[in-house]
Amino acid sequence: MLRLLFALLALALVSLRGAPEKLPTPPASVEQWGLFEIALAGPAEGNPFVDVRLDAVFDNGSQQVKVAGFYDGDGIYRIRFMPTTQGKWRYRTEANRWPLTGKMGEFTATAPGPGNHGPVRVHNRFHFAYADGKPYRQVGTTIYNWIDTPDTVQEETLRTLAASPFNKARMLLTQQPTPYRKEFAPPRWPYVGQPPHAWDYTRFNPAFFQHYETRLAQLRDLGIEADIILFNPYGQFGFESLDAAADERFVRYVVARFGAFRNVWWSLANEYDFLRTKTEADWDQIGRTVAAADPYGHLLSIHNGHLLFDHRQPWVTHASVQDGQALETVGAARIYRDAFRKPVVFDEIKYEGDAKFRWADLDGFGMVHRFWVATLSGTYAGHGDYFNTVDEDTWTSFGGKISGQSVPRLAFLRQLMEAGPAGGIEPIDSWMDPGMAGQMGSYYLHYFGRQAPTTWTFQLYRDELVEGARFRVEVIDVWDMTITPVEGEFVLKRKDRYHFIDAQSRAVALPGKPGIALRIQRIDTPTAKTPGKAATEDI
Amino acid sequence: MLRLLFALLALALVSLRGAPEKLPTPPASVEQWGLFEIALAGPAEGNPFVDVRLDAVFDNGSQQVKVAGFYDGDGIYRIRFMPTTQGKWRYRTEANRWPLTGKMGEFTATAPGPGNHGPVRVHNRFHFAYADGKPYRQVGTTIYNWIDTPDTVQEETLRTLAASPFNKARMLLTQQPTPYRKEFAPPRWPYVGQPPHAWDYTRFNPAFFQHYETRLAQLRDLGIEADIILFNPYGQFGFESLDAAADERFVRYVVARFGAFRNVWWSLANEYDFLRTKTEADWDQIGRTVAAADPYGHLLSIHNGHLLFDHRQPWVTHASVQDGQALETVGAARIYRDAFRKPVVFDEIKYEGDAKFRWADLDGFGMVHRFWVATLSGTYAGHGDYFNTVDEDTWTSFGGKISGQSVPRLAFLRQLMEAGPAGGIEPIDSWMDPGMAGQMGSYYLHYFGRQAPTTWTFQLYRDELVEGARFRVEVIDVWDMTITPVEGEFVLKRKDRYHFIDAQSRAVALPGKPGIALRIQRIDTPTAKTPGKAATEDI
Repeated sequence: MLRLLFALLALALVSLRGAPEKLPTPPASVEQWGLFEIALAGPAEGNPFVDVRLDAVFDNGSQQVKVAGFYDGDGIYRIRFMPTTQGKWRYRTEANRWPLTGKMGEFTATAPGPGNHGPVRVHNRFHFAYADGKPYRQVGTTIYNWIDTPDTVQEETLRTLAASPFNKARMLLTQQPTPYRKEFAPPRWPYVGQPPHAWDYTRFNPAFFQHYETRLAQLRDLGIEADIILFNPYGQFGFESLDAAADERFVRYVVARFGAFRNVWWSLANEYDFLRTKTEADWDQIGRTVAAADPYGHLLSIHNGHLLFDHRQPWVTHASVQDGQALETVGAARIYRDAFRKPVVFDEIKYEGDAKFRWADLDGFGMVHRFWVATLSGTYAGHGDYFNTVDEDTWTSFGGKISGQSVPRLAFLRQLMEAGPAGGIEPIDSWMDPGMAGQMGSYYLHYFGRQAPTTWTFQLYRDELVEGARFRVEVIDVWDMTITPVEGEFVLKRKDRYHFIDAQSRAVALPGKPGIALRIQRIDTPTAKTPGKAATEDI
Repeated sequence: MLRLLFALLALALVSLRGAPEKLPTPPASVEQWGLFEIALAGPAEGNPFVDVRLDAVFDNGSQQVKVAGFYDGDGIYRIRFMPTTQGKWRYRTEANRWPLTGKMGEFTATAPGPGNHGPVRVHNRFHFAYADGKPYRQVGTTIYNWIDTPDTVQEETLRTLAASPFNKARMLLTQQPTPYRKEFAPPRWPYVGQPPHAWDYTRFNPAFFQHYETRLAQLRDLGIEADIILFNPYGQFGFESLDAAADERFVRYVVARFGAFRNVWWSLANEYDFLRTKTEADWDQIGRTVAAADPYGHLLSIHNGHLLFDHRQPWVTHASVQDGQALETVGAARIYRDAFRKPVVFDEIKYEGDAKFRWADLDGFGMVHRFWVATLSGTYAGHGDYFNTVDEDTWTSFGGKISGQSVPRLAFLRQLMEAGPAGGIEPIDSWMDPGMAGQMGSYYLHYFGRQAPTTWTFQLYRDELVEGARFRVEVIDVWDMTITPVEGEFVLKRKDRYHFIDAQSRAVALPGKPGIALRIQRIDTPTAKTPGKAATEDI
C-alpha cells in the first residue's frame, strides 16, 4: 500500500512538472577522459526507472563502447560517456521508447587539460598509474558521510582536502546514522520514500545523485579519487537489505550515473562481513555486475571486517584490506601481495585519534609509521582521523577539519614516493631483510620503524649489483620531515655470498630515535645489465 | 631407438621370469584404515604399464569405492584398498584383460589396532585430526632423499625418527643429486632405463616403488605421516620434464600404489616455481588429477619457492608454505590463514644449521622460536637440520643423525600442543595482541618471543569471559623446557571496554630472558555461555 502511495505521489510530481521545455545540445568537444553528456526528453509517466531501457553505442572508428543511460527525473534522460582516446567519436542511442531511440551525434575528444591524467589503473601488478602513464601513489583518507552534512561542513571538507596530501577519499554512498540525522536530517536520500525506513526501491531520487555528482566533480578537480562505498552495514535504513534484483538495479543506476567520472573507484562495501544480509556469493554476484556494467574498468574492490574477502576473484582489481596490525612491523603486509597478486591498499589501519574505541586511538606517529611500513611493503594505506567530539562528529565520520598530526608527514611521504622509482617500491629481500625495499640495483629505502639505532653499516642485497657501483645515502626523519645527505659516496665491494658493503666498510650515523629511514640511490650508470639472481634456488 | 631397446629388454626380462607360480590369497580381515591387497596374475607381455587397465570396486553395502590397480612386474598385478569403515567389504575387479577381470571376494575390516587412528584430515578449518577424531598436531621434519642412501643410513634415519617428536617427514619421491650418486649410486630408479638420463617413461621400475613402500610402512608404524613430494626441481634427471601424459601416468601409478597407506600425504612439488618446465596451469592439472585419482582424499598440497601458489584452488587441502620470515614475529603468519582459509603448514622456515647458505643458518633457539610463533599463529611448522658436512650430507638432505639442538624442545612443544584444546590453538585478538592465542574463554597461550620481559600484568581479551571467572597461570621456558605454576589464582574483573584483569590487578613475574611463554587455563566451570562479541563492529 505504501509502495503504491509512493508511486502515485511520484507520478503526480512528474505530471505537475511536465516535460522539460528545452534541453542543452551536447558539446562539440570534450577532453579525453572528460565527461560527455547527452540529455534527452522522454516519457515521465509510469516508472521510468524500471520501464525505460536506454543506452548508446559510442564509436571512434576502431572501438565501440556501449554505455547505459539513466533517468534523471522530470522527464529527462541522460547518457554519459568518458572518451578514452582522442579524436572523433560518433554515437547512436537505442531505447525501448521512440523519443529516446536512434538519436545520433558526434563530438571530438581533445587533449586532456592540466591535471587530467585519466582514470587510475593497476600498474606493474602491485601499483597504480593514471591512464596517461603518470604513476599514482595512493595516499588515502576516509570521510564516510561527509556528503550528508550541512553545506558549510561539506565546503570546509573540500578546503581541508585541498590543503591535504590525500589523493583518494573513501566515502559512503548511502547514509550511516549521524548526529545530523537528528539535528540536520540528511536533506537527500537515494530513494523516493519516507525516512528512515519507508522506501520505494524501484524509484531513485535524482536530487540525491545530482548532489553527489557535484561533489564527485569537485573531488576530481582537486585531483582526488573517490572510492565510493556502494553498501555499508551501518545505516540500517534498509539499503543493506535489498533483494538481488534491487541490488542490481541500484548498482546499474549508480554505474550509469557515475561511471563517466574519471576519478571514480567502486568499493562494494565497507566491512562487508558485518553486513549480514548478504553472503559472499551475493558479493561475488554484485562485483561481477559492477564489472560488467562499467565499460571503463574503474578500480573495483571490497573491504573486510573480520573475514578477509577472497580477493583472487577476477573482478577484484586490488585488495582493499582492514588490518592495522599488518603494518606495525615491516614483513607481514607483503603476504597479502603474495596471496592475491594484486595491489594491496590497507584502507583501514586504525584511525589517528583519542577516541574511546581502540580502532581509533593511534597517535600521529603511529599513523605515519604505518604508512611507512605500507610503503616499504610495496603496498598502500588509508588515513582516518577520529578525535573525541560531540556525537563522534569526526573527520572520518563527517569531514570538516582534521585534528591529528599525521597529515604534513603523509604529505612528506607522498613527495618521497612520487620522487621514487616509476615502477613503485618493491620488496627486495623480504624473507631476510624486510625493512629494505625499492628497485633492485638502483633505489633502496630502508626504514627502521620504532627502533632507534645510532648507526647502520652500509649493506645491500647482491641481486642486480656489481662491485664498484656507487651510491649516495640520505637520512630521512619521517616525523621531522628532514632529508639529510650523508657526506661522500658508497662504493660497493663483495662482502659474502649474499651482500655488498662499502669498499671502506663505511657505516651511516643515525640519530638514535624512532622513525628514521634511509634513501640510497645509485649515482653511477650501470654499464650492462647485471644478471639477476633472484630466481635461483639459493635464496 | 633407445626406447625400443628398453622395451625389448624389459620384455626379455619378463619372459625369462615367466608368470608367477602362486600368489597369496587376500586376507580375510584387515584393520579399518589398514591396507588390504589383492594380487593377480596377468599378462607380462607388451607393456603392462600402459596396455592393461585394472581396477576394482569395493562395496560395504552403503558405499562403493573404485580403486585403480597397478602392475608390479613379473606378471603380477595388485589392487590395494584402505577400508574407511569397519565391517564386511565385497569387491569385484574390472580389467581389459580376461585373467584380471571379474575377480570377486570379500573381507572384514576390523577395529583399528593400537596406534592406528586413520589418515589425517583437515579439522576445524585450520587444523588437523586423524580420521578417528584424535587431534593431530603437526611437528614435521624434512629428509628429502633419505630413501636413496645406503641401507645403513636408512636404518639410522628410522632410529633417529623413532626417538624424535616428528610426526611428519617431508621426502622426495624421485632423486636429487647426492654425494651418494657418485659413491653409492641410488640402487633403484623410478623408471626402467639407464641413469642418469636415459629413461623409458612408459615403464616404471617396481623395485623402486616396493622399496619406497617398505619405508612408508615403517614410517606408518612409527606414527609418522609421509609427505611425499611427487616432483622436484633438483634432480634434473628428466623426471621434472615429462610431458602432460607422462606426468599423469606417473601420478596415477603412484596414487594406485601408495594411496592405501593411511600415512600418505601428497605434496605436488617442492619449490614448484623453480621447476621451470611446468606452468601454474600444469600444476593445477596435476593437482586435479591426484585429487580425482585418490579415493581417500589424502592431504594434498604444493610448496613454493619465491612465488606463493594460489592455495585457494579447491584441490589444495592446506597451504604448504616456505616463508621463515613470517614466523619471526607473531602477527604475520595468520595472514596466510585469512587469505586461504585452510590449514597453513610452514614446511620450510630455514633449517637449523651452520651452513654457508643463509637458508640453513638458524640456531637452535631460532628454530624453536619459529615453531612457537607458528603455534601462536594457529599454524604449523617444519624442521630441517643442515650442519656442515662433507658434500652436504645433512639430516635434511639424506637423513642419518640430527646435529642441532631444537629436537627436544620441539618434543616439549608437541606435548604442550597435545595437552591443549581439542579445537587447536586459534588467534584471539590478532589485530591488537597477536602474541596471545588459544581458545577464547578457556585456554590462552601467551608467547613473548625474543623479548625478555620481567613482568606481565594479567589481562585477557573480553570475548567469552565474565567477571569472576578464575584462571591458573604457568610460566613456560621454551628452551629449558620447564613449566612453573604461578602461585594462587587469577579472578577476572573488568578493566575497560576490551579487557579483563585480575581483581587484585596481579602481575606475573617473568625470568627476563627470551623464549618465555604463559599458559593460562580456566579453572572454574562457566555457568552459561557468555555471548561472544567477536562479531560486532567494535573491533
